[in-house]
Amino acid sequence: MNQNHQIEIEKAHLRIKSATHLTPILTSESIDLIAGCKLYFKCENFQKIGAFKMRGAANAIFQLKGSSTTKGITTHSSGNHAQAVALAAKEAKFKAKIVMPSNAPKVKIAAVKGYGAEVVLCEPTLQAREDGVQKIIQENGFVFIHPYDNWEVIYGQATCAKEIYEQEKDLDAILVPIGGGGLMAGSILSTLAYSPNTQIIGCEPKGADDAYQSWKSGKYLPQTNPNTIADGLKTSVGEINFPIIMENVAVIFTVTDEEIIAAMRLIYERLKIVIEPSCAVPLAVVLGNANYFKGKKIGIILTGGNVDLSGLPF
Amino acid sequence: MNQNHQIEIEKAHLRIKSATHLTPILTSESIDLIAGCKLYFKCENFQKIGAFKMRGAANAIFQLKGSSTTKGITTHSSGNHAQAVALAAKEAKFKAKIVMPSNAPKVKIAAVKGYGAEVVLCEPTLQAREDGVQKIIQENGFVFIHPYDNWEVIYGQATCAKEIYEQEKDLDAILVPIGGGGLMAGSILSTLAYSPNTQIIGCEPKGADDAYQSWKSGKYLPQTNPNTIADGLKTSVGEINFPIIMENVAVIFTVTDEEIIAAMRLIYERLKIVIEPSCAVPLAVVLGNANYFKGKKIGIILTGGNVDLSGLPF
Repeated sequence: MNQNHQIEIEKAHLRIKSATHLTPILTSESIDLIAGCKLYFKCENFQKIGAFKMRGAANAIFQLKGSSTTKGITTHSSGNHAQAVALAAKEAKFKAKIVMPSNAPKVKIAAVKGYGAEVVLCEPTLQAREDGVQKIIQENGFVFIHPYDNWEVIYGQATCAKEIYEQEKDLDAILVPIGGGGLMAGSILSTLAYSPNTQIIGCEPKGADDAYQSWKSGKYLPQTNPNTIADGLKTSVGEINFPIIMENVAVIFTVTDEEIIAAMRLIYERLKIVIEPSCAVPLAVVLGNANYFKGKKIGIILTGGNVDLSGLPF
Repeated sequence: MNQNHQIEIEKAHLRIKSATHLTPILTSESIDLIAGCKLYFKCENFQKIGAFKMRGAANAIFQLKGSSTTKGITTHSSGNHAQAVALAAKEAKFKAKIVMPSNAPKVKIAAVKGYGAEVVLCEPTLQAREDGVQKIIQENGFVFIHPYDNWEVIYGQATCAKEIYEQEKDLDAILVPIGGGGLMAGSILSTLAYSPNTQIIGCEPKGADDAYQSWKSGKYLPQTNPNTIADGLKTSVGEINFPIIMENVAVIFTVTDEEIIAAMRLIYERLKIVIEPSCAVPLAVVLGNANYFKGKKIGIILTGGNVDLSGLPF
């Protein structure tokens, strides 16, 4: 474990404390009975803006507080990162311009505007989004906060697993979904620092399994045509995150959309909480690999709760 | 305030402590902003069996522990009370026979059986349910636990408001939905005992407003043709509960099903929790009477979370 990472995680945790919730860890006897193991659900759906993304955005942006050269903050995102950057920028008293694809849900665009950010709509392609951000950087001199391929964002996301280990000792494993890999990389750094005997397990939908394919083959295979209900996990793993993940995961499991939907419904029915489909991927992994997890103490990060309630898959 | 009530509530609280959860109180800055007041949501959707009913059933049944004359427990219910009686009877090591209407949701019948109770199906009429229970009393000598018109059940439900006052001081008002009136009567007794300056406000759907009509006219008007999405509130107020409620509520407000659905959706979206439609009635009352509640500190009991996820009204 690189000592510097631990120091940066602890600085991040202090930095974001007042702007984030210490989210609860929920348990359910009935889910444990079904799963055959003891599960600890870290509820980032109760986090500010409804997702863990607030941690990373706040850590990256709050460091710029008081900087006279920072003229404002920009990013591109269709979802949770956009809201997180908008709210963190507002709290740090920075202007923010967020590039969002024109097909982003209206409610998410309204939420970003509600935090006082300017929304710049663009064509729904990655190229148009990146071009939009480049234009803002050149014309306004704003600072770009990448959603996951950014060390300060990773240290911010790491505070989530740190909180789990402060509350639950002796976890046998921690399960984290992998999208861009910011949360996974951060969780790895915190596990190495605070709970080195805990096994680190990556979880992906079969329809967006670039990390799994890369891990299996030993080479970087970015996501090409993602197709899954877990819309938060469609992106390819970022450059900074990739080696951290490949060197430290014990295993990466994948699950089908049917398994994700069944696990999602179980969480609604038994934990009585609202989550996004991406959150259900780790529980689906546990239910689909009963022998592997039998009798163990397992931490699961429920990443967020920003879901279209009119479009629930059940 | 009758001192005996307070003593009974405190005995109830000690009696049920090991069999119930101390449920959390959630708050939401964004809902407060919309409502123009400060709201404290007591989350009985996180209670054992997913509803406050566990409190009353456990209090009534645990008193019979060790009684050699008690041969078993019986009740009739299509929903939460059935599960509560089944689980409390199991924990007190009593047999239980639960009369359920043949059209009760299969998942609820399965849940009751899962707690080890015998389910006796009957025609879906109140008469058939009461006849079924009478038969069990006569043939088996089992003890009948009424879902709301029973002092021990009322004292059990009272522990919910007691917990609110232990955590939140100086509430200006407490809002409780009225169905059979057990939770409302219990909440009144706890308010008089622990927070006598807090205003007690009853909440009903317009489609099942027997308490409101009775309160307005000053005479007992039972519910005839209830028609509301808030299916937990269709029953008439019980005999024991009626005078307690009429003498102590400051006001009873009613809301439409449209208002209930809008408030329910707001709770899913902002609190990120799963609740039954009945739970949303008090928030709908707050949103529909903004001037009355402006700037106040208000406690709201979210009664339960056992909802058919395939039939959400949005």
